[in-house]
Amino acid sequence: MTENLQIDRLPRTVELARDADGGATLSYVDQRLLPAELSFARTRDWRAVVDAIKALAVRGAPAIGVAGAAAVALWAQEAAAGAAGAGEGAAYRDALGRAAETVASARPTAVNLRWAAERTRDGAFRALDGGATPSEVAEALFDQVKRMEAEDEAANRAIGAHGAALLRPGSRVLTHCNAGSLATAFFGTALGVVYAAAAQGKIERVYADETRPVGQGARLTAWELARAGVPCTLVCDNMAASLMARGEVDAVVVGADRIAANGDVANKIGTYGVAVLARHHGVPFYVAAPTSTIDASVADGAGIPIEERDPAEVLPQPLAGVEVWNPAFDVTPAALVTRIVTERGAFEPGSLVY
Amino acid sequence: MTENLQIDRLPRTVELARDADGGATLSYVDQRLLPAELSFARTRDWRAVVDAIKALAVRGAPAIGVAGAAAVALWAQEAAAGAAGAGEGAAYRDALGRAAETVASARPTAVNLRWAAERTRDGAFRALDGGATPSEVAEALFDQVKRMEAEDEAANRAIGAHGAALLRPGSRVLTHCNAGSLATAFFGTALGVVYAAAAQGKIERVYADETRPVGQGARLTAWELARAGVPCTLVCDNMAASLMARGEVDAVVVGADRIAANGDVANKIGTYGVAVLARHHGVPFYVAAPTSTIDASVADGAGIPIEERDPAEVLPQPLAGVEVWNPAFDVTPAALVTRIVTERGAFEPGSLVY
Repeated sequence: MTENLQIDRLPRTVELARDADGGATLSYVDQRLLPAELSFARTRDWRAVVDAIKALAVRGAPAIGVAGAAAVALWAQEAAAGAAGAGEGAAYRDALGRAAETVASARPTAVNLRWAAERTRDGAFRALDGGATPSEVAEALFDQVKRMEAEDEAANRAIGAHGAALLRPGSRVLTHCNAGSLATAFFGTALGVVYAAAAQGKIERVYADETRPVGQGARLTAWELARAGVPCTLVCDNMAASLMARGEVDAVVVGADRIAANGDVANKIGTYGVAVLARHHGVPFYVAAPTSTIDASVADGAGIPIEERDPAEVLPQPLAGVEVWNPAFDVTPAALVTRIVTERGAFEPGSLVY
Repeated sequence: MTENLQIDRLPRTVELARDADGGATLSYVDQRLLPAELSFARTRDWRAVVDAIKALAVRGAPAIGVAGAAAVALWAQEAAAGAAGAGEGAAYRDALGRAAETVASARPTAVNLRWAAERTRDGAFRALDGGATPSEVAEALFDQVKRMEAEDEAANRAIGAHGAALLRPGSRVLTHCNAGSLATAFFGTALGVVYAAAAQGKIERVYADETRPVGQGARLTAWELARAGVPCTLVCDNMAASLMARGEVDAVVVGADRIAANGDVANKIGTYGVAVLARHHGVPFYVAAPTSTIDASVADGAGIPIEERDPAEVLPQPLAGVEVWNPAFDVTPAALVTRIVTERGAFEPGSLVY
């Protein structure tokens, strides 16, 4: 049980702040170093933020959304200082558009990144339309990113409340990958549901899939749950079926990187298999994600691009004659999803409100 | 396709032989060193063989069966030299029984080990009943182990033939763990089916699950298939579901560590999940194993002991507050098994002939 619950021990994953000289700096947890070390990187360089997103130093759909917005704000700060070669007027708008596109395309699957980068870009366009100078645009975007951080945490807390209502006391929850506080500005989506339920005394234990090949479950979810005081058992991905067969899983709760209009869910590779197993064992399968994860422009999962990553993540030493397939995500059809929990409520996947 | 098929490039996994001085020595591939190095260990010490089985230097149900038989034969050689403190008569029989039990209990799940150790012990008892001296017992057991090696290969080739008949030309086969030549004296069970089918031009590609936490798929199956010239793609365990959803798996073929009388199958952890996925996607699920893997004394899978191993296999650096569950095997119910292929034929799991 969770009498030692301490959500406030969790770090702020991505946070824009002003230094003593007034300059905006993005601070983020370098998640490549966890669980060995909780280390914060700090940068004013928008390109460094893009690189951090590509390298998985910052990962998790909502977190890379906020980081992407911050990258656009940092671009604006650079442009205001005359360092971005942006000029003014149409040239400035063009340069901003290109920077926002660079940010939005840093990773292809999670839609929150493009959503956040374009939303921030559009905030700048509106400010420019209102006659703002580059410095005023930078100010406005700083404020916009801070609002986005706060909105993300608020959405997660609402997701947590809606999701916790679905869980019974004594729940043993299985999760895949990390849709925790580390995947968001703060609090988490899938683990936000866990934290909210734990605060109500409903969580007996969380089973964390290790989530090969990058190990977000083993490295991040296990660390995060232990730090927050939630009992956690780590298993290899291929052990989830046995846990369910033994009746040790009351619910599966996972996050999402993109949700199609019909309720199909793209999430970390392996999620789909867990959904099939949950259905086979009669275990409810919940997806927790903010509304910004829903991509109404995509009719169903077939339209979601699936990022394929470096084979070396799977096989560090190449083996002659052996190929590797390394998709980072998969698509769970809506039919296998019991509920999609957003900040607006818990919906049947075919009846999403967004 | 498999125009480069070269089964004979595969090593003899476990092989008892006489050195120039006439002493019996067990040679085995130290599988802990693969895929980096194909290295043969050699020993006359029966306790070293037990340790090699416990440490997974030799693994795979049929291979540890042969190695276990060889360990008992090496005990007999030691006893014949007066070095085992075995004495003669009843004392010798007691010491033999204890040694065979030590071998049989080195690992709990695969029944082949106990079957082979007790069969070898009983061979010694019969020789003693016939008036054999300890030296003659050692001779008899050497010959018995050599027959067992040959029987294992012959059984595997028969399994291969029966299994290949189940596969269509152009088959893309998914396998889990290593039930290959490395798991047997030679040729393999699940991969024996692949090799036999490949020789008939039926194999397009094998997908190998990496098989966490020990990585028998990544380290052994991928190496073995590449060495034998079979096209192989390595995936993480959690990617098998996506492969099936994409229609890229025509059949699953796995081995077994113990098969209950009702056809329930214990095999490497993760096998059960693959079986559930195969059923969900309408993919046939074949189990390939010699008859010695069937344990008629166990009514169903609930009676099969499941070995739990060191958490450090999953999480090398312990993390405060994080537990680990590390079962080495799981049980696939007979209802999810399309056919069990033994050297006697391909059977519906409820109608096994043994």
